[in-house]
Amino acid sequence: MGVVVQKYGGTSVGSVEKIQNVARKIAGRYRETNRIVVVVSAMSGETDKLLKLAREMSKKPDPRELDVMVSTGEQVSVSLLAMALKDLGVPARSLLAHQIGIFTDNAFTRARIQTIELDMLKKVLENGEVAVVAGFQGMTDDKDITTLGRGGSDTSAVALAAVLKADVCEIYTDVDGVYTCDPNICENARRIDKISYDEMLELASLGAKVLQTRSVEFGKKYNVPILVKSSFTDEGGTLTTMEDEDMEKEVVSGITYDRNEARITLLGLQDRPGIAATVFTALAEENINVDMIIQNSSADGKSADLSFTVAKGDYEKANEILKKKACELGARDVVGDTSIAKLSIVGVGMRSHAGVAARMFEALSRVGINIIMISTSEIKISCAIDQKYLELGVRVLHETFEMDAPLTAEAGS
Amino acid sequence: MGVVVQKYGGTSVGSVEKIQNVARKIAGRYRETNRIVVVVSAMSGETDKLLKLAREMSKKPDPRELDVMVSTGEQVSVSLLAMALKDLGVPARSLLAHQIGIFTDNAFTRARIQTIELDMLKKVLENGEVAVVAGFQGMTDDKDITTLGRGGSDTSAVALAAVLKADVCEIYTDVDGVYTCDPNICENARRIDKISYDEMLELASLGAKVLQTRSVEFGKKYNVPILVKSSFTDEGGTLTTMEDEDMEKEVVSGITYDRNEARITLLGLQDRPGIAATVFTALAEENINVDMIIQNSSADGKSADLSFTVAKGDYEKANEILKKKACELGARDVVGDTSIAKLSIVGVGMRSHAGVAARMFEALSRVGINIIMISTSEIKISCAIDQKYLELGVRVLHETFEMDAPLTAEAGS
Repeated sequence: MGVVVQKYGGTSVGSVEKIQNVARKIAGRYRETNRIVVVVSAMSGETDKLLKLAREMSKKPDPRELDVMVSTGEQVSVSLLAMALKDLGVPARSLLAHQIGIFTDNAFTRARIQTIELDMLKKVLENGEVAVVAGFQGMTDDKDITTLGRGGSDTSAVALAAVLKADVCEIYTDVDGVYTCDPNICENARRIDKISYDEMLELASLGAKVLQTRSVEFGKKYNVPILVKSSFTDEGGTLTTMEDEDMEKEVVSGITYDRNEARITLLGLQDRPGIAATVFTALAEENINVDMIIQNSSADGKSADLSFTVAKGDYEKANEILKKKACELGARDVVGDTSIAKLSIVGVGMRSHAGVAARMFEALSRVGINIIMISTSEIKISCAIDQKYLELGVRVLHETFEMDAPLTAEAGS
Repeated sequence: MGVVVQKYGGTSVGSVEKIQNVARKIAGRYRETNRIVVVVSAMSGETDKLLKLAREMSKKPDPRELDVMVSTGEQVSVSLLAMALKDLGVPARSLLAHQIGIFTDNAFTRARIQTIELDMLKKVLENGEVAVVAGFQGMTDDKDITTLGRGGSDTSAVALAAVLKADVCEIYTDVDGVYTCDPNICENARRIDKISYDEMLELASLGAKVLQTRSVEFGKKYNVPILVKSSFTDEGGTLTTMEDEDMEKEVVSGITYDRNEARITLLGLQDRPGIAATVFTALAEENINVDMIIQNSSADGKSADLSFTVAKGDYEKANEILKKKACELGARDVVGDTSIAKLSIVGVGMRSHAGVAARMFEALSRVGINIIMISTSEIKISCAIDQKYLELGVRVLHETFEMDAPLTAEAGS
């Protein structure tokens, strides 16, 4: 019999009562199977409270120590959930990353899982105990505590589902699935029943906050179906799984946006080989991820402007690094812009439908939205636009790609 | 060059500002020696907050999970102190029990340290880093997290000082030393400059809250001098060390009391061998410690009354256990009394001075205090009395043994 892996997010375990509710749900499931692994986030608000305390202590808290600190949030919630389960007569045992052996690299605050040991987990499951695992955390080979970045508990859950060869990884959260776009912006948003890993990856990395990108990568790599459901209702849900024919019928599966990007432009760079590499190596060394990149050469071919986007949280640091490097790079100036937003459409159907980009650009221009940057992948098109037009852009694209219409597959089934 | 071990209690690290103060103190010391181990408690109030949360979750929180939870208090404070030290340019590294390898038995919530591995600690010290160690916590051979009971950080510190062969273990707290009696009760209380392990053991176990008993046991066993000082001033301090001649000049070194005891009496027990063993084995199995014990046989030698005291927190559980056992033990009834207090005098000088007990009982009777139980050791005499006479008893004994007078040794030096 397969192992069930469930993950409960911060809002699902946000209070003693909510944790008791989760315990009752698990107890019900335990009557069907006693091979259950539950991954838990910190109680909602706890991680932010800890981060605030760290920032009161230090302007730039040491990342190693920050991870020691914020990992306590999950340590508290797993112990509470294990207590609640035991009170219901369900054998349970909280497990921290160092107890299981969830090994990561040593990129503190954004570590990546490398291996997971199975001995302890198997022992607990064979005892008939529910394994209540602290999400978000890992350890290095040197026994340092690491954390996996915001939303890291999703990744903990999917990685555990992968190594335990679970049939499905159930992610319980405060929404009942993934929508075609943000329902707060677009009232016609529709829940997506089934979506491919690649689409979900694009949606996740583009800013739809439902799943951490890394968790979807794990799901894809190890073929773990990921079911996102509400912990408060039993209905609905979005299953992320391998691509199938139904999915390709739709050109665009979802629209997503990200307000958390900022643009940096290096003006008048010398246009010689290796310049771009120098820029992005300098940023990578500081663990700064770059998203959209555009380079324009001048008419005479002697200089170029290089624009790219980074997360807003990395903006100042990136700016600082590049201002120091400007001279070496031969750049005339470094300018930035934090008032942009990224608007994207995603769909595996794009592969077989021509002209999707043109339809997108035309729709935006029709309502007067200027496109600042464009980047594309096989199944996604992103535009950086002025932040103030974001909601308008989302709505016009949702309409353009007829996303509020029910799925053909649904209608026929 | 020897290692310095310091311990800072909860009030010393009760806020960001206080932790920064502690960091400055350590930074000053670091200029003299870079082999520093600092043991830290949870920020004041944190442990109670966590215990409250646990009790909201469960009437009888699972002890294993309770330890997972409350050990987070120290995890937060060590990370904050390490951040603060690094901000001052002092290399520092927080270390949890499982990272160092502080192994305990598996008596959750009151575990005892068994071994401490030195590899990690030595590596950190050789790196010139201040080792900021989470007090109060340990781990079992099965990787379970344990805690050492209230005040357990003292024990962590002394145990580390012992294995590291430190010259002294400095305990920083919110008082500037150990007093002849509670200054809140007796305004003539005097700070003791130097005291023997045995006396301190009696004072600690009798309820003076300055050091955890277990820490003094460690100090005695491994001959680690323990200096208790205020973290807010540089003056004063009480050194607990090996007995010397000066100490014996005083008959009574300190007066202490404990309001946290309750008395249980088994009435009409069969007076046959093994009965007492049955009673105390039953309690020991539930990890209940018994303090004073009195047994009175009846005139005909056929039955006996057995009285003893337990911590108030164990009172209900002990009562419950014994009521179940009453029949097996042949006891007529089990009665209890939670309104007692224990009043004690302690001093190595008692060994060489006769009549100390008589002076104590006479002094109490002079002010009309009835003695309910008596227990003695080589260097201590304890009386259980009605709780409402406690303050009166403390004051009259302080006067009787002339404890507000300055030490002869001090006057002569």
